[in-house]
Amino acid sequence: MESNSVSPMPELAPIAEFDKTPPTPPEDTLPMDDLPPPPNTVVNVQEEKEKEAEAEAKAHRHYEDENEWGCGSWLEYTVVVVCASILLLGSLALTLFWVIQYRGGFAWREDPEREFNLHPVLMVAGFITFSGFSILLYRICRCCRRIYVKLLHTIFHALAIPCVAVGFLAVLDSHNLSSPPKPNFYSLHSWIGLVTMGLFALQFVVGFFSFLVLLCCEGATAGFRAALVPIHASFGLTTFMLAIAASLTGLTQKVWLVLKPEEYTAWKEEGIIINSLAMALVALAILVSFAVRSPTLKGDTRMTVTERL
Amino acid sequence: MESNSVSPMPELAPIAEFDKTPPTPPEDTLPMDDLPPPPNTVVNVQEEKEKEAEAEAKAHRHYEDENEWGCGSWLEYTVVVVCASILLLGSLALTLFWVIQYRGGFAWREDPEREFNLHPVLMVAGFITFSGFSILLYRICRCCRRIYVKLLHTIFHALAIPCVAVGFLAVLDSHNLSSPPKPNFYSLHSWIGLVTMGLFALQFVVGFFSFLVLLCCEGATAGFRAALVPIHASFGLTTFMLAIAASLTGLTQKVWLVLKPEEYTAWKEEGIIINSLAMALVALAILVSFAVRSPTLKGDTRMTVTERL
Repeated sequence: MESNSVSPMPELAPIAEFDKTPPTPPEDTLPMDDLPPPPNTVVNVQEEKEKEAEAEAKAHRHYEDENEWGCGSWLEYTVVVVCASILLLGSLALTLFWVIQYRGGFAWREDPEREFNLHPVLMVAGFITFSGFSILLYRICRCCRRIYVKLLHTIFHALAIPCVAVGFLAVLDSHNLSSPPKPNFYSLHSWIGLVTMGLFALQFVVGFFSFLVLLCCEGATAGFRAALVPIHASFGLTTFMLAIAASLTGLTQKVWLVLKPEEYTAWKEEGIIINSLAMALVALAILVSFAVRSPTLKGDTRMTVTERL
Repeated sequence: MESNSVSPMPELAPIAEFDKTPPTPPEDTLPMDDLPPPPNTVVNVQEEKEKEAEAEAKAHRHYEDENEWGCGSWLEYTVVVVCASILLLGSLALTLFWVIQYRGGFAWREDPEREFNLHPVLMVAGFITFSGFSILLYRICRCCRRIYVKLLHTIFHALAIPCVAVGFLAVLDSHNLSSPPKPNFYSLHSWIGLVTMGLFALQFVVGFFSFLVLLCCEGATAGFRAALVPIHASFGLTTFMLAIAASLTGLTQKVWLVLKPEEYTAWKEEGIIINSLAMALVALAILVSFAVRSPTLKGDTRMTVTERL
């Protein structure tokens, strides 16, 4: 079972409890292996101490050999983090390559056709690359202090905001400045995009106030924040998935608008590149949701039962 | 905090541990409130019994009033389950309506154009409606015996298989019988569809053997199955999300193939119906992933630490 271990640091809280501040455990935290023996057990003190030492040594060995540095978990950790990072940066690079090589690069208001090209690049940068790294941080830095991870998570999402905003303006501008002007918000892609932006904004505002601002009165808001964590985590992953779905519909729409059907069916180069970009996004959907899944709880794992966020 | 409670039965295992068989707790299962008092506590037996009775009554009241029948959790439970069921059946109904009303209904090999219409209907039935209900079962029946939920989960997924298989054959057949024949597997939609079918098949085979067949030697395989649960749950939700993404790209492609751009931008009826179907699928993505999220762990909740699957 150890080779199936899902985390290099399984002693830490599962992802759904990502906000714990480890240094000072709260009073009602009850580590499982600090429990007193049952009262009906007759124990010899010496014997008990020996057993304890043995158990500790065993636990230590177990921790060192199999969990923290175990090949299984480190192998999984490295593969997931490296592949996800390559895909997150690779999908942005591929979008850039496609737009520059096949769509004529960028422009601002002087050329609406090329102004549009900012849209896919900035949306992939904001919704996929920055947001993806922001989510992945909870897998990469599971061993760091929670407050640093939280701050980095906020910074990465904050970096996504200007990208998404300018990407959105670019497509509106490009439609309005075309001659004749193109209408907005009629397509399935635009509807999905609007839902995704709405969810993203909601998550950012709620997350910022709940997990950073409310820390000012830490004790009073702990229960509320604890209840919010799984909801924020679930909606966060869903927003990422919807961003991928929005990108995929956008790419589908673009490929049918810019390529003739006979070019697409004849495996024209640009079609293959757009399909490959879509596949990178699909691989990211699988990998990121796998990376931040709830870990397996284990009987021999020291765990704290009360959440403190 | 109770009004934020996420489950009508929070005493039960979180979704990631959905396979527990509750009637016979294993030897090493350690319910938190059955713990003996610390050895340095001086207790009077009578006093202790009174306290125990009081605590039990309190726990019972807590369970009855706030968790199982509490307004917050039941409200959430009802809203999520009812809305998700309406959307799961509604998206199938809307697909049927669209295909019959606007695309000429169904046919088999005599009319490839109408044979194609089986594809969206059967794929939505298999990948969205049956699979969606199958996933949702773990939220609907959290209070039932795990083995029944498992069997129902398998049956719903098994029902999806013929839908997906015939839906796949329908599109292949329709392409090959067209004059001139249309090529297969060139589009982004078809690539995403193939990945989704592959993941679905993998999940079904691994799930069937691990969680049903391996029950024949329950004890020996418990560790392996425990490690597999979060992976199976994560990949299951991802497969559902990819199925939605595949549907959305399919709808985008179809709308650009069958409607002229000026019809789509002028909000032609068929375009609005396809967009609405897409929105129903997006709502399902949000609702289903919210419904099966990991629940909040609570300090005062009876929980078992060792997983038994």
